[in-house]
Amino acid sequence: MFTRIDHVGIACHDLDATVDFYRRTYGLALTHSETNEEQGVREAMLRVNGTDDGGASYVQLLQPISDDSPVAKFLERNGEGVHHVAFGTPDVDSAAESARGRGVRVLSAEPRPGSMGSRISFLHPKDCGGVLTEIVQGPDSTR
Amino acid sequence: MFTRIDHVGIACHDLDATVDFYRRTYGLALTHSETNEEQGVREAMLRVNGTDDGGASYVQLLQPISDDSPVAKFLERNGEGVHHVAFGTPDVDSAAESARGRGVRVLSAEPRPGSMGSRISFLHPKDCGGVLTEIVQGPDSTR
Repeated sequence: MFTRIDHVGIACHDLDATVDFYRRTYGLALTHSETNEEQGVREAMLRVNGTDDGGASYVQLLQPISDDSPVAKFLERNGEGVHHVAFGTPDVDSAAESARGRGVRVLSAEPRPGSMGSRISFLHPKDCGGVLTEIVQGPDSTR
Repeated sequence: MFTRIDHVGIACHDLDATVDFYRRTYGLALTHSETNEEQGVREAMLRVNGTDDGGASYVQLLQPISDDSPVAKFLERNGEGVHHVAFGTPDVDSAAESARGRGVRVLSAEPRPGSMGSRISFLHPKDCGGVLTEIVQGPDSTR
């Protein structure tokens, strides 16, 4: 069902400073940045490696753009740190359906728009051992 | 400096039940398990994908074996969830030295034994945007 670690999503207060930290300290390249109004975040993707399913693994940095976004609330409760883990799959609809069939709550009825043209669903952290888990299908539907 | 996401380390109360969840729900394969007395954990590695540096990305599940281990304290404070993020590198000594040179505290003077014969160093989460960051060099020293 999951064919790669697509990204680790990290919440931060200052996106530009945190991108700078990851670039300078670890040598990662900033691949992409965008604002996702629906999720209430500015985000940056830093590519770490290619994966054998034809995709790649990224560090995703997230800064809230509104005080009532989920990432803003996360930062209020926990401070900066890992917000979620995202796994890549060739078919987000069937992966979400399969998780649902195993009693895992899926946070939206249908997949939503994610980074770089992907489609994503989130699984409830209480059903996933405390990990907010994202399922990602890339814009190329084969991965 | 970092050539792959090596693993995401997840703290849990019941290793066997959590391995079972990741196998059944997501179809991941249990690759390896061991006890790391020094870190005070039983751990399981579930392989997700191969990486283009010749390594692989794993979910690492961690259950404390003593009440005073760092993972036991993490669970007490935070409950189950993501404990750390580990990046692979061909040379953990020079990567740790480079991080130190950029003002990031490294939690041990020398790398310690990690999963599956690796050598690892941890970076202080307060210097890494709230993320406990591990650097991993595999037993094959080219990655």
